[in-house]
Amino acid sequence: MRLSHYLLPVLKETPSEATIISHQLMLRAGMIRQLSSGIYNWLPLGLNVLKKVENIVREEMNKAGAVELLMPTMQPASLWAESGRGDYGKETLIVTDRHNNQLIYGPTNEEVITDIFRNNVRSYKELPLNLYHIQWKFRDEIRPRFGVMRGREFLMKDAYSFDIDEKSAKESYDTMYRAYFKIFKRLGLKAIPFKADTGAIGGDMSHEFQVIANTGESEIFYDPKFEELVDTDELDIPTLRSLYSAADEMHDPAQAPSDVKSARGIEVGHIFYLGDKYSAAMKAEVMGADGKSTTVKMGCYGIGVSRLVGAIIEASHDENGIIWPESVAPFQAAIINVKSGHEACDKACEALYAHLCEAGIETLYDDRKESAGSKFATQDLIGTPWQIAVGPRSLEQGNVELKNRKTGEKQDVPLDKVIAYVT
Amino acid sequence: MRLSHYLLPVLKETPSEATIISHQLMLRAGMIRQLSSGIYNWLPLGLNVLKKVENIVREEMNKAGAVELLMPTMQPASLWAESGRGDYGKETLIVTDRHNNQLIYGPTNEEVITDIFRNNVRSYKELPLNLYHIQWKFRDEIRPRFGVMRGREFLMKDAYSFDIDEKSAKESYDTMYRAYFKIFKRLGLKAIPFKADTGAIGGDMSHEFQVIANTGESEIFYDPKFEELVDTDELDIPTLRSLYSAADEMHDPAQAPSDVKSARGIEVGHIFYLGDKYSAAMKAEVMGADGKSTTVKMGCYGIGVSRLVGAIIEASHDENGIIWPESVAPFQAAIINVKSGHEACDKACEALYAHLCEAGIETLYDDRKESAGSKFATQDLIGTPWQIAVGPRSLEQGNVELKNRKTGEKQDVPLDKVIAYVT
Repeated sequence: MRLSHYLLPVLKETPSEATIISHQLMLRAGMIRQLSSGIYNWLPLGLNVLKKVENIVREEMNKAGAVELLMPTMQPASLWAESGRGDYGKETLIVTDRHNNQLIYGPTNEEVITDIFRNNVRSYKELPLNLYHIQWKFRDEIRPRFGVMRGREFLMKDAYSFDIDEKSAKESYDTMYRAYFKIFKRLGLKAIPFKADTGAIGGDMSHEFQVIANTGESEIFYDPKFEELVDTDELDIPTLRSLYSAADEMHDPAQAPSDVKSARGIEVGHIFYLGDKYSAAMKAEVMGADGKSTTVKMGCYGIGVSRLVGAIIEASHDENGIIWPESVAPFQAAIINVKSGHEACDKACEALYAHLCEAGIETLYDDRKESAGSKFATQDLIGTPWQIAVGPRSLEQGNVELKNRKTGEKQDVPLDKVIAYVT
Repeated sequence: MRLSHYLLPVLKETPSEATIISHQLMLRAGMIRQLSSGIYNWLPLGLNVLKKVENIVREEMNKAGAVELLMPTMQPASLWAESGRGDYGKETLIVTDRHNNQLIYGPTNEEVITDIFRNNVRSYKELPLNLYHIQWKFRDEIRPRFGVMRGREFLMKDAYSFDIDEKSAKESYDTMYRAYFKIFKRLGLKAIPFKADTGAIGGDMSHEFQVIANTGESEIFYDPKFEELVDTDELDIPTLRSLYSAADEMHDPAQAPSDVKSARGIEVGHIFYLGDKYSAAMKAEVMGADGKSTTVKMGCYGIGVSRLVGAIIEASHDENGIIWPESVAPFQAAIINVKSGHEACDKACEALYAHLCEAGIETLYDDRKESAGSKFATQDLIGTPWQIAVGPRSLEQGNVELKNRKTGEKQDVPLDKVIAYVT
């Protein structure tokens, strides 16, 4: 992408509306703009990252055997009366349509998915089944804040498992538990699972996943072995379960074992074993192997996709801006034309840009007539992992200057060898 | 994908709620289910096609230089007062949030994009700029019908161009005009452009694109040369414009030139030159080359993405089901295990399935214990372009039976040569 053809409205000043670092950096890097309280436009750079996060979630869900579908944003309120959640709170956005029917902007989809299941699945032979979607949700928060971390309109992945009995349902739960570790690891995050309250969703077992970040919203306590495990592929469920973790609401710090580590955490995922809470109320039944009708056991599994973009930034930034993990970086490489208008620089940049694009490397080419200093600052702010400065002096030696955003390390590299370095 | 792990609730009977063929086939093929009037769940097969259509639209928009962002579904009503569209009709879904602010579920995004533009673009140097998004919209139709062809919640691509003057703006318009031809061609559709009314959107030039389909909603008249042009890459704008086309509302059939062809059409795209209708009302200005503030000229360009899924089926089906163009087929190939449980068949199917997946061919493997006849009927219904039947008899000769869904042609093919045929 040529920056001259892009929309990247970076800001030098920190907007006063933003109090946490991810919100500040997302505004400054031109990733988002607020449209209304807790409702954001995702500008091109922000959408790019959001889609990368979404795709990693999707890939790992598919690998874990879940099947994607898409439920609409608007749901008939009548379904909520059936499940016993008809007494929704003020966070539920309800609208009356022209035919006087009530529609809810879905904050979660237990009712709709259970309705789909009961209308379309007949036999135990079709189980286990895990259906998920990635869709915008709405919660009319009384005080939206922290940018996309606690917005009103937000993107969420929610999966729902259906099993013939509790044993099988708990295996489905563990499959998701493992998939969550893989997702967060691929996103460059250290996420620790905590036993959690089941709250309004119901059910009798639940874990929430907290990302460790200095600016996290809550204090968490956990066995440091979790951090090691997150970095390996050792995802043995019994081992993980035996490790100690607790959020501050549930735990008196004074009573924590002495080797327990404390940190700040951001909740990025929540999984629930629901049992038959929804399936019994809504009669989601299949024919069992014995020929009898059986109420299925359900689980539900959420990940805050748009929130994750903020969480990644909270966990990975410095005083100059964002430091993206390569898996979600909007551009892998940036070409900084140090002297736009200088014939040799322009020519070298154009050739390099064509070369990088051909190699499938997502590249942002800053071809604008701006000062080199401002171009460098922009790339640090938006966190491009590899920054290639093309200037007249090094070019005379056939070189460009390659900078690694994470380490800050700079080195002169032959122009025709750049690709080997950035892949 | 193994069918035993998928959700594909096909129906033998045509549901009485559906009156047009695409709606009937989408229900029967298990692509969609109605959740509420004009609001649909996209089941896995339907979502698969929807995403393919969406990606083709996205790729061609990007190739044409448009930049993707994402505006939220909910918009503050206050913006609509600014543009002069505050007097919205009954099709607009309006909700009052807990803080007593009015939000509109966006039916279109002129106001929001103009607001983004005026807040983030300052100079003529940043133009021309074409920003688009692919987002769910809502229109509270009084009588939703024809399935996803006229639903209430629907997926739309809307692009908005910003230019410094009318000449440049008309070039942007022509660029989109050309991109639309490419999009519809890739989708296997013959789409004819018609001069159109500008209606509620405003502006002074407009074209709508109509797909030719026997079951189309309106009668159209056009020069048959259009059909030839659609099949070539000859997209010369003056030539196209000189050809004759008119929708029935605008034209008396008796007066049409004798060589004009008449057909039925489905509207799938609409482009408008807006001039300064929104930019003047909302003060979308940039600094011109002369240092003076200039009101930008806009255009807007819509494509009904979810509607296209229905339109493709209207244009391409037979008495047995859907015939997908390969570009949007949910699966390129299907493996039909004619005798599930037969050791040689199971083994051959498993090996073939692994082989096709490895080769990157999206394959649906019908591994269920169902009759061969029902499996064949399912693949015809859902329109898989290549159907590979693995049965004991042909397997003894080392063969499988390969069927082309479109031509109906069947041939015996050596098991180890199948990939060469289906790619």
